[in-house]
Amino acid sequence: MATNVVGKFLIHDLHIHLRQGALMRAVTPTLNKAGIGAVFVMPNLKPPISTADQAVAYRSQLQALAPNVTFLMSLYLNPALTPAEIRKAKKAGVVGVKSYPRGVTTNSEGGIESYTVYYDVFKAMEEEDMVLNLHGEIPSDPDNDICVLNAEERFLSHLKQLHKDFPKLRIVLEHATTKAAVDAVKSLGPTVGCTITVHHLELIVDDWAGKCHNYCKPVAKYPHDRKALQDIIKQGHPRFFLGTDSAPHPRHMKETSVCAAGVYTGPHILAYLANALDSFGALDKLSQFGTEFGAKFYHLKESDIKNASAVTLVKEPFTIPQLVKYIDDEGVERELVPYRAGETLNFSILPVSNKRKASDE
Amino acid sequence: MATNVVGKFLIHDLHIHLRQGALMRAVTPTLNKAGIGAVFVMPNLKPPISTADQAVAYRSQLQALAPNVTFLMSLYLNPALTPAEIRKAKKAGVVGVKSYPRGVTTNSEGGIESYTVYYDVFKAMEEEDMVLNLHGEIPSDPDNDICVLNAEERFLSHLKQLHKDFPKLRIVLEHATTKAAVDAVKSLGPTVGCTITVHHLELIVDDWAGKCHNYCKPVAKYPHDRKALQDIIKQGHPRFFLGTDSAPHPRHMKETSVCAAGVYTGPHILAYLANALDSFGALDKLSQFGTEFGAKFYHLKESDIKNASAVTLVKEPFTIPQLVKYIDDEGVERELVPYRAGETLNFSILPVSNKRKASDE
Repeated sequence: MATNVVGKFLIHDLHIHLRQGALMRAVTPTLNKAGIGAVFVMPNLKPPISTADQAVAYRSQLQALAPNVTFLMSLYLNPALTPAEIRKAKKAGVVGVKSYPRGVTTNSEGGIESYTVYYDVFKAMEEEDMVLNLHGEIPSDPDNDICVLNAEERFLSHLKQLHKDFPKLRIVLEHATTKAAVDAVKSLGPTVGCTITVHHLELIVDDWAGKCHNYCKPVAKYPHDRKALQDIIKQGHPRFFLGTDSAPHPRHMKETSVCAAGVYTGPHILAYLANALDSFGALDKLSQFGTEFGAKFYHLKESDIKNASAVTLVKEPFTIPQLVKYIDDEGVERELVPYRAGETLNFSILPVSNKRKASDE
Repeated sequence: MATNVVGKFLIHDLHIHLRQGALMRAVTPTLNKAGIGAVFVMPNLKPPISTADQAVAYRSQLQALAPNVTFLMSLYLNPALTPAEIRKAKKAGVVGVKSYPRGVTTNSEGGIESYTVYYDVFKAMEEEDMVLNLHGEIPSDPDNDICVLNAEERFLSHLKQLHKDFPKLRIVLEHATTKAAVDAVKSLGPTVGCTITVHHLELIVDDWAGKCHNYCKPVAKYPHDRKALQDIIKQGHPRFFLGTDSAPHPRHMKETSVCAAGVYTGPHILAYLANALDSFGALDKLSQFGTEFGAKFYHLKESDIKNASAVTLVKEPFTIPQLVKYIDDEGVERELVPYRAGETLNFSILPVSNKRKASDE
């Protein structure tokens, strides 16, 4: 067995959806033994996490479910957000503010152009050293040839403008999927980072065309886009780091006429990541991409990760469970279908125990 | 009511999947009263229609189910096909030979990899004045940046080469989805035609992303591609004509983890077509695109359409049924979900009778 040990790892997932209610209680505890130090938690609940108080309350719920994990919280950018609330959030330990295109478009006909209405908030965030997290897509607009395939590329001018107007504001372009996005982030200054999911390192458009469990937003794009994501990691660029965008939806919301967008990678992040990196010769970048670069961008200190312990990654076959069952808020048994369900990865974390994992979860 | 009459129409669908067994028996009779004169029938059954005798037998089955409709039959291009079989097929009234690239759509595992091995067959087809029908996509190949989004554009060099080598062979590029394909067909000689589906006049990639009932191969592409398809019809180009690619799959094969490719438009072709054309100001092209251009390319004579009668199209609201039920070959009740199920179109054919239609089918 010893010859198959890759090493000990404690990774950070700087973009994750942990939901609320029964689904939150189902997915959050799986992080405890997953080798996760810190996670940056998305605020898109119903209702969205819009205030410091809400973020603190949500963090308490999550912390109780996964005591070993450090939860970095975010607010949902919205018109009610004020500089005063930003300062209050900072004091409460909130780390970032997430911008979704839809939230922006409700405020002006020009959609994403209306970032200017948030400039006083961004100014406060810059002063308080908070992070602005961008879902980097503009709304589809067929009259201007904009669809899900070029929505990210067409967004990049907004990223550049925001960075120009707030050069000291830390900005993360979330879940990049295109070569254009990689090139844009590379070209910008040290305050601009970028998360990359595991599944976007493996999928292209063919893999979600008619395959609902691989369907997420932003959609996976062309092979050359996937290669650009792989290459920037292989190069060890310090402003690109892991954010899985793990987004569980119950199976009946996926395998239906209108599929919920999201890929569920949460419970096996480290195994997926090792498998993906190894597939393009970048296993040696696991610590940098999965741990160090994200920690540095987010100013994570050793003391922040006080309770987490590293896990041992081994090169041993590991079969992803077909299903994860849970009881929803109405008491109905539901199922989650993990990414690559039923497939066997080349990596696992100790103790390797497929059968126990499958039934435990 | 009289003021809402658009006119009387008898259209031809030069690309349709009528399946076999119970599904064939469920979908074929709906053509009887649909205002369909002739249909060109795809040969991708299990096993494929590979010989003249098989095509004749299949035609007999279909004719019994829809006596008013003229069935133009095709063979599945395969290595066993000989010039002698081509001549036999011609004598038996078979009209075309369909080429599928390997693995790109339903039942295409036996598809072609190289056209040059078929040149003696194509020569015989040219001499016999048969039609070569091309599924115009090359297989995805990530190492060469080929995926479902550019598979059609990358195929076009093959179309051009075939036309150059067999200038008198009538060739149809089936179900074009891109501006590149429209431009290529336009640039070629009078023996090259092109079918366009109704759904590709309405859908872009956003419409099938996560929406299984709009997922088909080739996939709908960018807004500018959709506009190119609309524009060529609006221009009244005589080598572009209707081929719906209506492709029914039972619901449980669509709303699942790996969705069958195909959009089911068959029972309401004329209403869908009128609605689509009207949406971009081309309702006046209904006869040309839906009837005349296809008939001319396929050398259809009045005497070929002997039993069909035109139907009256009216501008009256028509709601597409949510489901069409049938009993499959194992005796299990199954459902088909028609294109735009539950949506209300602006056009119908007389008699307008939503309720009766929904239950009849």
